[in-house]
Amino acid sequence: MNMIPGLFWVVPAASVLALTFAWLFFRQMMRQSEGTETMVRIAEHVRRGAMAYLRQQYKVVTIVFAVLCALFALMAYFGFQNGFVWFAFLTGGFFSGLAGFFGMKTATYASARTANAARQSLNSGLQVAFRSGAVMGLVVVGLALLDISLWFIALNLLIDDPDPMHKMMIITTTMLTFGMGASTQALFARVGGGIYTKAADVGADLVGKVEAGIPEDDPRNPATIADNVGDNVGDVAGMGADLYESYAGSILATAALGAAAFMNDAVLQLKAVIAPMLIGAVGTVLSILGIYLVRTREDATQKQLLGALGRGVNISSLLIVVFSFIILRALAIPNATGVLIAMVVGLLVGIAIGKTTEYFTSHSYRPTQRIANATSTGPATVIIAGLGTGMLSTAFPVLFVVVGIILAYLSAAGWDFANMNMGLYGIGMAAVGMLSTLGITLATDAYGPIADNAGGNAEMSGLGKEVRSRTDALDALGNTTAATGKGFAIGSAALTALALLASYIEELKIGLYRIGQQTLEFADGDTVSLAEASLTDFMNYYGVHLMNPKVLAGVFIGSMMAFVFCGLTMQAVGRAAASMVDEVRRQFREIKGILEGKAEPDYARCVAISTKGAQKEMMLPSLLAIIAPILMGVVFGVAGVIGLLVGGLGAGFVLAVFMANSGGAWDNAKKYIEEGNLGGKGSDAHKAAVIGDTVGDPFKDTSGPSLNILIKLMSMVSIVMAGLTAAFSLL
Amino acid sequence: MNMIPGLFWVVPAASVLALTFAWLFFRQMMRQSEGTETMVRIAEHVRRGAMAYLRQQYKVVTIVFAVLCALFALMAYFGFQNGFVWFAFLTGGFFSGLAGFFGMKTATYASARTANAARQSLNSGLQVAFRSGAVMGLVVVGLALLDISLWFIALNLLIDDPDPMHKMMIITTTMLTFGMGASTQALFARVGGGIYTKAADVGADLVGKVEAGIPEDDPRNPATIADNVGDNVGDVAGMGADLYESYAGSILATAALGAAAFMNDAVLQLKAVIAPMLIGAVGTVLSILGIYLVRTREDATQKQLLGALGRGVNISSLLIVVFSFIILRALAIPNATGVLIAMVVGLLVGIAIGKTTEYFTSHSYRPTQRIANATSTGPATVIIAGLGTGMLSTAFPVLFVVVGIILAYLSAAGWDFANMNMGLYGIGMAAVGMLSTLGITLATDAYGPIADNAGGNAEMSGLGKEVRSRTDALDALGNTTAATGKGFAIGSAALTALALLASYIEELKIGLYRIGQQTLEFADGDTVSLAEASLTDFMNYYGVHLMNPKVLAGVFIGSMMAFVFCGLTMQAVGRAAASMVDEVRRQFREIKGILEGKAEPDYARCVAISTKGAQKEMMLPSLLAIIAPILMGVVFGVAGVIGLLVGGLGAGFVLAVFMANSGGAWDNAKKYIEEGNLGGKGSDAHKAAVIGDTVGDPFKDTSGPSLNILIKLMSMVSIVMAGLTAAFSLL
Repeated sequence: MNMIPGLFWVVPAASVLALTFAWLFFRQMMRQSEGTETMVRIAEHVRRGAMAYLRQQYKVVTIVFAVLCALFALMAYFGFQNGFVWFAFLTGGFFSGLAGFFGMKTATYASARTANAARQSLNSGLQVAFRSGAVMGLVVVGLALLDISLWFIALNLLIDDPDPMHKMMIITTTMLTFGMGASTQALFARVGGGIYTKAADVGADLVGKVEAGIPEDDPRNPATIADNVGDNVGDVAGMGADLYESYAGSILATAALGAAAFMNDAVLQLKAVIAPMLIGAVGTVLSILGIYLVRTREDATQKQLLGALGRGVNISSLLIVVFSFIILRALAIPNATGVLIAMVVGLLVGIAIGKTTEYFTSHSYRPTQRIANATSTGPATVIIAGLGTGMLSTAFPVLFVVVGIILAYLSAAGWDFANMNMGLYGIGMAAVGMLSTLGITLATDAYGPIADNAGGNAEMSGLGKEVRSRTDALDALGNTTAATGKGFAIGSAALTALALLASYIEELKIGLYRIGQQTLEFADGDTVSLAEASLTDFMNYYGVHLMNPKVLAGVFIGSMMAFVFCGLTMQAVGRAAASMVDEVRRQFREIKGILEGKAEPDYARCVAISTKGAQKEMMLPSLLAIIAPILMGVVFGVAGVIGLLVGGLGAGFVLAVFMANSGGAWDNAKKYIEEGNLGGKGSDAHKAAVIGDTVGDPFKDTSGPSLNILIKLMSMVSIVMAGLTAAFSLL
Repeated sequence: MNMIPGLFWVVPAASVLALTFAWLFFRQMMRQSEGTETMVRIAEHVRRGAMAYLRQQYKVVTIVFAVLCALFALMAYFGFQNGFVWFAFLTGGFFSGLAGFFGMKTATYASARTANAARQSLNSGLQVAFRSGAVMGLVVVGLALLDISLWFIALNLLIDDPDPMHKMMIITTTMLTFGMGASTQALFARVGGGIYTKAADVGADLVGKVEAGIPEDDPRNPATIADNVGDNVGDVAGMGADLYESYAGSILATAALGAAAFMNDAVLQLKAVIAPMLIGAVGTVLSILGIYLVRTREDATQKQLLGALGRGVNISSLLIVVFSFIILRALAIPNATGVLIAMVVGLLVGIAIGKTTEYFTSHSYRPTQRIANATSTGPATVIIAGLGTGMLSTAFPVLFVVVGIILAYLSAAGWDFANMNMGLYGIGMAAVGMLSTLGITLATDAYGPIADNAGGNAEMSGLGKEVRSRTDALDALGNTTAATGKGFAIGSAALTALALLASYIEELKIGLYRIGQQTLEFADGDTVSLAEASLTDFMNYYGVHLMNPKVLAGVFIGSMMAFVFCGLTMQAVGRAAASMVDEVRRQFREIKGILEGKAEPDYARCVAISTKGAQKEMMLPSLLAIIAPILMGVVFGVAGVIGLLVGGLGAGFVLAVFMANSGGAWDNAKKYIEEGNLGGKGSDAHKAAVIGDTVGDPFKDTSGPSLNILIKLMSMVSIVMAGLTAAFSLL
């Protein structure tokens, strides 16, 4: 217990603060009126569908968790793991699911209220939507800091190890296990939710918009409720679980690297471990401050609203840099300035990726306009142009991440490549820096789907054009701020995955201790004790260099995994959408009077079809992500596993950027035409653009965002299985 | 001179034999009648367009070669290279271009003759087309063996080094330079030809088929000649240069690995170096034998024809295994059986990849049929299904290659992972094994485009349905055999790239000698002399392990390069096709009577537009492939370069398979519908399938096949620049 310094208590305090404010904002939102009877009824439909889905989803995921927990318990029994792992894994999954659940609950209560507030003014709509988004942001960071605090305290009390430095290493690597729980939950949420939402969306569009010629969100379309449910389970619950995982993952990986970097000084080690937690805690407080700064005059223009959002985010970000410097200096972290620079580099990389995302996907710029222009030669050229643009656009995020890695590494390492432990700690800190103000950046991201759903509610309730145009404006606003959010999500995935790679070696070390190995014996007869072995020693010992065929096999399989995972999720959306299309067509055919608005469609059946499809289809790709690194370790050992992780990271990161940007660009090319350009709605150009948008749907909302989690989950699984890999492999 | 053993002379002899038979087959083909006056006139049009394109292409490439040669001369002047490099580079490019030129010349003379022969019978058509394809196959292997023989003899005479083993190392790595010349030429040919052919194809289809509703190859379509020219410059000249590069590259890389594997025994070393050349030479003789075995009864069915083709290929392949064993035993290569197993593994991997390619892209199987079924919900779901299928299909080639790498490595290394030099030699031999009978496998691949062009000629000349259906049958036959050819091309690219990776280290060693470094000094004070340093020593010395941020930066950039390259080529096709669409629309609008067949369209203008577009657009992606590894070496040094190559190989290989298979599956899904399924030609399903096919055009004929060369060219450039990288890098 004496290992926990007083400053640490800031972390649970910030967690409680975040959860309290989340509750306050939730109450505030609930006090608003939900509007007309129709609005209430429709919101109720969507809410019930969403909750029904989530219950189903959690049931399935519970089975997966039970199996994995049993596996971990077995591994602990045979001495390959400590006995806390399975429980840490479980809590990570539980809290991640909880973050998604609370976020979605809020969103489903907020949509009608946002639509109703938008009847007054744009600003009122923004206030309701943004505060509801803030609930999600604060719940995510609050729960993450809570889980981190509880486990840090508990493991300090429970783990019995005479060597404080060794104890800290075990604590931090055990805590990573809860990252695996969060990642597993997040992957299922993203994949399942992503399949759900796009099956409904594609199905609704193909039959409703294209075949029957009725507008989006028209109540006559049987799939329209499922479509709105999908926005909640995919974009909200999925995003919540996803970012919970990113946030917790970056802090935990950095803590583990901190423990590894200072294995010769217990005091410094402890400080390096809690530094990322403290930065997260302070960032949370600053996020709450920032959320309060987002307010404007009642008659604010769209530009002023955007300015207000930007102000909140920018002030939080600037302040976190100042406070992080204070924290790092107060903790007397060696080379505090260098570590701070690494953090700032992380923030800048996130912003830079966000800017290029915006450039390549917003229809204010040339690339998306060019895709829109390609409609003049039909859908095929729209698809070619969109794929080409997405592929090209990968250049910038990759170059930013590369420059970021090198700068963060070198600045934290005191510009010495050989100072590997500090360098990697710097890379971890860059990820922490990027996500430190997640409380507010997630709020600006999460209110987009709420505004989108508000628009759906307004349309279905027949609230008239003005309200719809206000919710559309909010939605458009959300798209701009979401670009930055996406930059942070994708950039942090790459940096966190790199940090996890290093943590893998630490976990391996513990695995070697467990099986009684105390030294690394090299082929030339040299011997290094585990305690003194550097990362480079481990690399040489296991032959993790790029001429080792096992490493190369791993790189090939890792690259392939990213593609196969996307292929499976794309196919899943295609199949689930096809069932939806059949059902909508059947209802149009069999339920008389449906298109005249005289008979109500069977919404519930469409909801059930999406739910069933998503549950069935999410299993294979998700399980693959868990099984592949385990199998790789069993067959190819450490060298193969690291090859797999690096191959998956390289190809997966680029593929994720490509899919997200192609999808976003097609979406906005369609919106560009819908705004009246190139012939506007209903023209041939518009039809071609709708086809592009439909192809882009699974790109940007199913496969692309799931890849970010896949990359990290494979690392997490490898870390948890490292004890087994250290003891045994076939080749 | 005494270093060249008697057995070596089999290589130039086989080369002369191959070229002689190529000339014989060419004469034989030329003796056939070209058919009616119209047929002659159309063939003349296509031939002139193709030759005009090639002349233009070679002009541009000559400038690039001149600049690169000047750079190499400069490097030689400053002592980073020997003085033969620039000239070897030049000859490689020259012969690769020559292979493409001869192949295309033959193809353009053969198309009308094939059509004319098909008026008699299917078998007559096959004989003309297949023998013409054989010209290409034999020219490619003949020229490659010629260039290899000439340089091997010349360098043996010219290089003056007292140490025979060191001399052999310099000879083999210098010869790799000619591989770089071939790769550079091949990349330009594939990219330029690929852009040309798909711009014409997409343009002709979009306006002709879709807008004007006239059939494919209709003489009223102004882009139809350009389309047929495109088949020749893309599929024939591009393929010729490409496979010349693969064939020569695999032999040269394996020779270099042989030199590295036996640095302690001059006699064995020499044998290991000439073994792959001898296997290539014998394979060539067996290919000629196989070509003669392809004959059937006059009234043969399609199935019997396929059987005849298969017989030729299978007998050659079986015999090469037997003869290789004799060669390896006669040379007394250590572990000859193991090396032979590696070779057989290579052959089997090629066949296995071919089989899965067929499964995923032929409409006899479920995956492509499912894509065709997706037409019922419109083009968007066709695209989603095709992309999903292509991504999923990458699993099998990757797993085959991985199993192949491990098996080839282990069997050649005597089942000892530590025996790295022999293991890598085994991987090289697997590539050589795959391509050993290229003379005949290329013939079965190259006759496809000839049959395709014959069909075009028949259509334009109005030869009637029966002839067209015979050329279509030949084309379909070609597609089946081409699947195997593609498996060999893609599998050998992966294996050769791995072999080149190892050669890079050898070249680096020579670079270190050049700058006067004789030993590797490690951080811990250990010292190893260059002569005794193992590959692992080099990996450790340069820190080429997967925790080094430079390596990781390289992997990221390498993965990104593959995507950006595809993005650029996709965009290029899109832009060039758009100009073509504008031109065809203009002609339909401005030239009166064109659609009634009363006025002749301005074919030449369309040819000129494709030529100009291809020349302009091929520069950026091709130069990027050359510049990226140079820049990487200058900034990040050896660790960064190897990271780049591995990242590019991993992501590039998977991306190449994905694009080739998606494209192939869309093409055949369309053909499936055109055969009368799901509504047949003209139905909505067909329209949706045509959109899928159009998107697939640049996938399978521009970006996908170019990636195979990109992967190897980046390795070749790194090898040629290794001297500079050894001496200097920024980080």
